[in-house]
Amino acid sequence: MSSVHAQAKRVKAGDRLALARLITLIENGEGKFQSILDDLYPSTGKAHIIGVTGPPGCGKSTLVNCLAKELKQIDEYSTHKIGIIAVDPTSPFTGGALLGDRVRMQSHASDPDIFIRSMASRGALGGIALATDNVAMAMDAAGYDPIIIETVGAGQSEVEIASLAHTTIVVEVPGLGDDVQAAKAGLLEIADILVVNKSEKPAADTTVASLERMLALGEDLKEKRIGSQWKIPLLKTSAIDCEGVSTLAESIRAHYQFLHTSGAWEKCNLVRLSKQVNALLRESLFDAWQEQIDLAGFNALMEKVMSHQVSPHQAVQMLLDTYQ
Amino acid sequence: MSSVHAQAKRVKAGDRLALARLITLIENGEGKFQSILDDLYPSTGKAHIIGVTGPPGCGKSTLVNCLAKELKQIDEYSTHKIGIIAVDPTSPFTGGALLGDRVRMQSHASDPDIFIRSMASRGALGGIALATDNVAMAMDAAGYDPIIIETVGAGQSEVEIASLAHTTIVVEVPGLGDDVQAAKAGLLEIADILVVNKSEKPAADTTVASLERMLALGEDLKEKRIGSQWKIPLLKTSAIDCEGVSTLAESIRAHYQFLHTSGAWEKCNLVRLSKQVNALLRESLFDAWQEQIDLAGFNALMEKVMSHQVSPHQAVQMLLDTYQ
Repeated sequence: MSSVHAQAKRVKAGDRLALARLITLIENGEGKFQSILDDLYPSTGKAHIIGVTGPPGCGKSTLVNCLAKELKQIDEYSTHKIGIIAVDPTSPFTGGALLGDRVRMQSHASDPDIFIRSMASRGALGGIALATDNVAMAMDAAGYDPIIIETVGAGQSEVEIASLAHTTIVVEVPGLGDDVQAAKAGLLEIADILVVNKSEKPAADTTVASLERMLALGEDLKEKRIGSQWKIPLLKTSAIDCEGVSTLAESIRAHYQFLHTSGAWEKCNLVRLSKQVNALLRESLFDAWQEQIDLAGFNALMEKVMSHQVSPHQAVQMLLDTYQ
Repeated sequence: MSSVHAQAKRVKAGDRLALARLITLIENGEGKFQSILDDLYPSTGKAHIIGVTGPPGCGKSTLVNCLAKELKQIDEYSTHKIGIIAVDPTSPFTGGALLGDRVRMQSHASDPDIFIRSMASRGALGGIALATDNVAMAMDAAGYDPIIIETVGAGQSEVEIASLAHTTIVVEVPGLGDDVQAAKAGLLEIADILVVNKSEKPAADTTVASLERMLALGEDLKEKRIGSQWKIPLLKTSAIDCEGVSTLAESIRAHYQFLHTSGAWEKCNLVRLSKQVNALLRESLFDAWQEQIDLAGFNALMEKVMSHQVSPHQAVQMLLDTYQ
């Protein structure tokens, strides 16, 4: 256990290599990471977690790279270290865009105040959402604040990850047809800040206008949210030459202050931590159960399911009756 | 139980209203649906499950509508009833694009051989993947074959749903930049058939060329897949006027035949049913555990987590020690 404590100490002291190693343990689901995180936990809770989500191809990575630099221009963040977690659960086999990550890491390699890590952890304990939470916790303990979590795609897991952040930024891109309005509406429900990126494109104004209408229509959906008094800003950016991103950085700071004055900060944390506890519980219960079953019996039952004699639900009832 | 048996019987006899009611029970997670599905299970296993996925705005809905009609033009399917399940887990609050669904249902309302249902079931037992599986099972028992499952987005859950199909169709759209190549690579790993929709757009040929290169590069990724001998066709469609969709329908039929001659059909089914059993087990174990805990004790522990005295992982260990 002393090595666990020593590793935790190095992470807290800001040792980048120790942090990188811990994140690898988290990704691979290697047992020791839990003890290290337990040791680090009392040192966490300070970091502002920012989620950035939107459809593939909307330029999120470029935007986030630029955002990290612009945040450092804000007085309050000038001495801060910024963490970036790029979550790409698209690929079931390779676990995501490793190549893209290499390219991006180079662009920040010379900056000791920015730590960027991409998550390739589809198989991680409790799924990618839990692994991302754990990596954010590690960065938090290492003194990174804010921590930007960037998710590719617009699916359920991505929305879940983004919605667990204190501040959720939804990035849209000009030119997608009206057939995605419904999908957009879904994302609007989780957005604290809305961004139309690639605003240099001719269709940008149409997209902005359509999102404005949607924001007006969506007022009642906001009621259900934590911090519903917040007025969602709609911003235009052109991340390729960093245009409009300083305004985005200021909006993020304004939302941070809103969270603290409105009490939404604590509510956010309660939701995030409760979900984390529940996800861990599910995994632990399943693992404990799996350890006590007899594999031959399980396989014999699966054969009955395959031959359509026993339904999956009936099989589960039989397993629970036998082993609980 | 006799009412359960009577309902199952009506579903098997092809009663559309009974099927619609059963799907509503599945969506709402109402207990009786499990008994009905158990009763139906011996009558399932015939349907060819087709997954269609791709980014928002790629025209999937239009494509699937048209595909259902084109499949009916193939001799083997001329007397078949076709099921469509539109999964839209994008919206965490409303559960998806209900408006779009209404519009689509009208276009098939006059066709007794097509049954279309959209899933608005984010809160469903075991998540949307399990609920979708259950709905497919219900349609299968009701005699629908093939069953097309259409998922919005390109996230982990969508990929998961699509990859559980016998045949997975990945739809791309012209004109997204090179920055999404990595995301595309992920989808290519699950595709049995690749479609570039909106092929009337000028950028279509560039997209086709880039996907062709990716297919050539991705040959080694295919090795890990079930049915790796299948040569992935790359098709162009323009769903808005149904162009190229008959070729897609023929490719689907060819893949169906490949699955049966290669033995991949059974392997697919084993993977799907095993995942279903595992997902059900996780939920059941968690539910059983939740029933025996003391809420006041749980809340007191959550407060310690909130004040950073006890980590989520430590909290779970304490809960398991107390209640197991």
